[in-house]
Amino acid sequence: MSNPSVVLRKIHDIGFENRPVPEIKDPHFVKIAIKCTGICGSDYHYYETGSCGSFVVKEPMVLGHESAGVVVEIGDAVEHLKVGDRVACEPGVPSRYSQEYKSGHYNLCPHMAFAATPPYDGTLCKYYLLPEDFLVKLPDHVSLEEGALAEPLSVGVHSNKQIGTKFGDRILVIGAGPVGLLAAGVARAFGATKVLILDISQTRLAFALEHNYATHAYNTKGKSESDVLAYIKKHWNGELPTGAIEATGVPACIAMAINLLDKGGRYVQVGMGPSAVDGFPIAKVGENEITVFGSFRYCVDDYKTSIALIADKKINVKPFVTHRFTFKQAIDAYKFFGEGKAIKIMIAGPE
Amino acid sequence: MSNPSVVLRKIHDIGFENRPVPEIKDPHFVKIAIKCTGICGSDYHYYETGSCGSFVVKEPMVLGHESAGVVVEIGDAVEHLKVGDRVACEPGVPSRYSQEYKSGHYNLCPHMAFAATPPYDGTLCKYYLLPEDFLVKLPDHVSLEEGALAEPLSVGVHSNKQIGTKFGDRILVIGAGPVGLLAAGVARAFGATKVLILDISQTRLAFALEHNYATHAYNTKGKSESDVLAYIKKHWNGELPTGAIEATGVPACIAMAINLLDKGGRYVQVGMGPSAVDGFPIAKVGENEITVFGSFRYCVDDYKTSIALIADKKINVKPFVTHRFTFKQAIDAYKFFGEGKAIKIMIAGPE
Amino acid sequence: MSNPSVVLRKIHDIGFENRPVPEIKDPHFVKIAIKCTGICGSDYHYYETGSCGSFVVKEPMVLGHESAGVVVEIGDAVEHLKVGDRVACEPGVPSRYSQEYKSGHYNLCPHMAFAATPPYDGTLCKYYLLPEDFLVKLPDHVSLEEGALAEPLSVGVHSNKQIGTKFGDRILVIGAGPVGLLAAGVARAFGATKVLILDISQTRLAFALEHNYATHAYNTKGKSESDVLAYIKKHWNGELPTGAIEATGVPACIAMAINLLDKGGRYVQVGMGPSAVDGFPIAKVGENEITVFGSFRYCVDDYKTSIALIADKKINVKPFVTHRFTFKQAIDAYKFFGEGKAIKIMIAGPE
Amino acid sequence: MSNPSVVLRKIHDIGFENRPVPEIKDPHFVKIAIKCTGICGSDYHYYETGSCGSFVVKEPMVLGHESAGVVVEIGDAVEHLKVGDRVACEPGVPSRYSQEYKSGHYNLCPHMAFAATPPYDGTLCKYYLLPEDFLVKLPDHVSLEEGALAEPLSVGVHSNKQIGTKFGDRILVIGAGPVGLLAAGVARAFGATKVLILDISQTRLAFALEHNYATHAYNTKGKSESDVLAYIKKHWNGELPTGAIEATGVPACIAMAINLLDKGGRYVQVGMGPSAVDGFPIAKVGENEITVFGSFRYCVDDYKTSIALIADKKINVKPFVTHRFTFKQAIDAYKFFGEGKAIKIMIAGPE
Repeated sequence: MSNPSVVLRKIHDIGFENRPVPEIKDPHFVKIAIKCTGICGSDYHYYETGSCGSFVVKEPMVLGHESAGVVVEIGDAVEHLKVGDRVACEPGVPSRYSQEYKSGHYNLCPHMAFAATPPYDGTLCKYYLLPEDFLVKLPDHVSLEEGALAEPLSVGVHSNKQIGTKFGDRILVIGAGPVGLLAAGVARAFGATKVLILDISQTRLAFALEHNYATHAYNTKGKSESDVLAYIKKHWNGELPTGAIEATGVPACIAMAINLLDKGGRYVQVGMGPSAVDGFPIAKVGENEITVFGSFRYCVDDYKTSIALIADKKINVKPFVTHRFTFKQAIDAYKFFGEGKAIKIMIAGPE
Repeated sequence: MSNPSVVLRKIHDIGFENRPVPEIKDPHFVKIAIKCTGICGSDYHYYETGSCGSFVVKEPMVLGHESAGVVVEIGDAVEHLKVGDRVACEPGVPSRYSQEYKSGHYNLCPHMAFAATPPYDGTLCKYYLLPEDFLVKLPDHVSLEEGALAEPLSVGVHSNKQIGTKFGDRILVIGAGPVGLLAAGVARAFGATKVLILDISQTRLAFALEHNYATHAYNTKGKSESDVLAYIKKHWNGELPTGAIEATGVPACIAMAINLLDKGGRYVQVGMGPSAVDGFPIAKVGENEITVFGSFRYCVDDYKTSIALIADKKINVKPFVTHRFTFKQAIDAYKFFGEGKAIKIMIAGPE
Repeated sequence: MSNPSVVLRKIHDIGFENRPVPEIKDPHFVKIAIKCTGICGSDYHYYETGSCGSFVVKEPMVLGHESAGVVVEIGDAVEHLKVGDRVACEPGVPSRYSQEYKSGHYNLCPHMAFAATPPYDGTLCKYYLLPEDFLVKLPDHVSLEEGALAEPLSVGVHSNKQIGTKFGDRILVIGAGPVGLLAAGVARAFGATKVLILDISQTRLAFALEHNYATHAYNTKGKSESDVLAYIKKHWNGELPTGAIEATGVPACIAMAINLLDKGGRYVQVGMGPSAVDGFPIAKVGENEITVFGSFRYCVDDYKTSIALIADKKINVKPFVTHRFTFKQAIDAYKFFGEGKAIKIMIAGPE
Repeated sequence: MSNPSVVLRKIHDIGFENRPVPEIKDPHFVKIAIKCTGICGSDYHYYETGSCGSFVVKEPMVLGHESAGVVVEIGDAVEHLKVGDRVACEPGVPSRYSQEYKSGHYNLCPHMAFAATPPYDGTLCKYYLLPEDFLVKLPDHVSLEEGALAEPLSVGVHSNKQIGTKFGDRILVIGAGPVGLLAAGVARAFGATKVLILDISQTRLAFALEHNYATHAYNTKGKSESDVLAYIKKHWNGELPTGAIEATGVPACIAMAINLLDKGGRYVQVGMGPSAVDGFPIAKVGENEITVFGSFRYCVDDYKTSIALIADKKINVKPFVTHRFTFKQAIDAYKFFGEGKAIKIMIAGPE
């Protein structure tokens, strides 16, 4: 097949299709042979429910948006990449004419064409096109799998940039799913002196500590907010978090994060949750002058930052890939995702 | 009486007491003869319920914290004030040794001694002591009543500083009580091109428009969020608010403010409300990268800013005082406050 | 002639040429019939010397970059403009693919195509093409001449944004040429409580005061830095400037501005001067933690801000145009510029 | 002797004096037994010239301001320290009533009482008093010498905070004296991916590389600005510095730093130099929108940051102390300083 692709046709119906090989029309574009693609919760959500947030799958759609590959062709205006370069693929291309792009916030562009977000096809295929500046060349010592991990890592990077994590910060991370784990690891990499991660999975907490994504981990199973407070006070010499990264969307977790922050603390909501939450501690936001930030995907330089973090060994993402599947096993990979055993599943590109 | 004072003894029990005239012990302090004091909702709340937020009146407490007066004595270290100067009184004095004070956020100081906040006596008396740098000298053309209004005006100033209101901003203000009105007026004074104020009191909305505290006013009685959206789109050329100042604490208002903001918008919670709210649109905060700020009282330079706004005629606060009482009528003034007819009640100092 | 244009052929040699009418190829572009164009010092500099900074005129070049006009044709992707709209023309179009554009700093884009900056032709012609988003529609009550003035006004806007001028600031402006005057006026419009402008031309200082571009003006002819300091202390109640806008490039003025700033003050260099200056007070920058900003042309939203300032009557630029010439008199207009009598010369578009 | 002290009587005249043991009068103060004190260039400057900047030694003055010691007595209001605690001593105490202190910039306070800055005595003595919040308790694994090094380290911390050094920055440091070296090391610790240090001393450059204070070092002896540019382009993949820390004050170095910065780069002047410099590239500041920051000593939390950097092993300052003297050898230590062979000389406290 010339461009074999993994297509979500409708709920619970994934299959292989041979799509046309895309041709470069815009001279700033590059054709990439996709070599590996991670599975994201949103991919699975489309598979399970046919939608994700306000996006609904109406036509068959190629899945996948966490990819890396090799350059096989370049447009005439491409300056910094050449055939054979290994690249991480930033999967969302905004309009160059939007106000959001112009002002440095292209992640908010309403005309964003994002891989595997209806109606745009994803990257789980053989060939994919992206503009040169949405590709980051991988240094020799960075693997393609690490390059594919730049996608979720960039979510962690962006959320930490939103709250300005820096040396000396004490960061509370709630939720040790892929986003929470990587956000924690970035907080460490950005210099946070202390990072406490909370979850109910002892395996994931152990993973965070083992790979220095966090300095402290606490299993909140059956624990209350005051238990967490007591833990922090005991282990942090009486000091409270200066920043909080909430990666669950659970109302009680959101409230806890805000309640536990030090005066003047910064909070960021990352990852998907319900559209509205009950019990939001607005009075605490006021009295303690907490600043609450949103964080949507990633933006200018976040992908570069991710690759640099990996290249400089500020974060070790290699152990993040816990399970691997061939391209032909892609359907099995999606089914396995549903079992919740993996931290990150990686699907190889078609041969 | 040497220092007649209006004292809240217990719920619904206000009376006059003669308190000792305070003596200057710290050389940075100044003794002020109080000349006028506004009534704030928090004063009335203590009167009605005996508490306000987490503060509970346990001992008889002098009421009042919105005051201006005349300098009658100065400490040895006072440099910039002299006997006879007319001054606005910033009523909360933090610890000079707290981390919050040192880092420029003294409003968050846990050792704050704030007038008429238990256990600290208020300013509704004849003589009151404050450090020199918590007094702002009034220019000749600014009245003592205007000076007393610097207190609620500074709340409006601080909230606008939190969201960085500047020329070109489009600000949505929810609630036309004293805080909402003044926050709106400050937004205008700070250069907001458009200020829309929402309330269900036509009188207050008319006041806002008449005195240029807002460019637009909309009565939300019986109206939905989509009605407000339609109003904005129609009158603002399709553009959404860049900033929102929420001054009600009502959950539906909080949600509406966040939902109506433009991408990248800034929201500030000002004024008291419930400790936690339901239906908080956290997904919108995330997707649109809204930043939610808290705003607690006022801080460095806010009082100076307030007096400068009045002195430069950037805001006209004179019509804000709708009802006046003598010191002897103070008890009647408090009772009248409960009727909700006044925008601001001013009580004259004792003769 | 189909597209009559005023062309600089070589030093001191300007003439009329009939250039081809430009055709819309990019669907985001708009064709404007130019209606008026101001003369800028840089235009004249090319006329006098054949170069400006590092830019050298090698081929005949159409002059002019301060223009407004009327839309006569729109590309297929244009959304917000229609034929007949009156627009201010932002004359520099960056690459949509540059890192500078992407990060919100397109004024620094190395691929900028700027009108009347070699090798790009200017706007002093009948028809000119610009992308939709580099045009700002003029409200009905804003004239085309005011629209043309958005160009130098935007230089003033950008410099004030660089130092964050806001209510309460005390701004020192050095130089009352077009840039200095407009920067001063914007400082006032952005809320600066006090604006002191310095120059040796009494006429220009009087202009600044008359039109409220400044609150104070001081003629520095024969005066020293300590004279200026004494003036400020006397008139500003002992307070020093919080911001300085230097619009001369003269070493002694630069030093004076930095020396006179209050601790923590912000300084911005605007306008052209020598590439390097002697006597720069670096120790003062260090001891007083002065921040020195550069300001190059204008960037995201500055043009919109300029038109909004005019539309909202925050600044009155009408008296800024002191001399008018027809298109046929364009050569005379350039010669007259050299006499230095005008604040701003406006040349009408060809009929 | 009860409080033996090293006193500078006049130029080139240092000797030992027995000063009275200071007594705690302010309850926030702590009495420290000084255990080690580093020699700073300013100390030596007083010794050699009797002055430093605008400060002139008129009365005999105890030298020293880079000290650490042990708490021997605490005032009644001291909360967090106890007798026996090992502490780093921040040597400058501002007025708690100054506007600078209140606004979070106490380093600019005009009433600063700074050790060994006339007329204030220094720390090179047996007993010294400081307020609790100007002392940082040393963790057990941090030595007293490391604590004394917090003083110059904090200068490096503050300068990096001024330019906001963060992960991914490429920092150019000019000058490998103590301040330049430590500023470079802090840049690394704050996450700068690349740090290039320039000097003409091969020994100091080697020191910087050996201890990871820099990733690159270049000996500028006999080299031009274009040589440095070529070096950067070659070793940094064509990318220019995003930040520059100038620690020499030499005009040619200042100009080079600004000229070599990337567009939008940040520059900070740290350390002492001439009051004014020639050849300052102001046009580059304008065209490239470079921001030039001053950096004066250190401010809120800088000392805490320094101790945390050492405690977390983000910077290894142990090798910084190259020479040690006993208290009795203090005069020899000062003479040896003049030979310029040491990176840092440490004098032990009196026994």
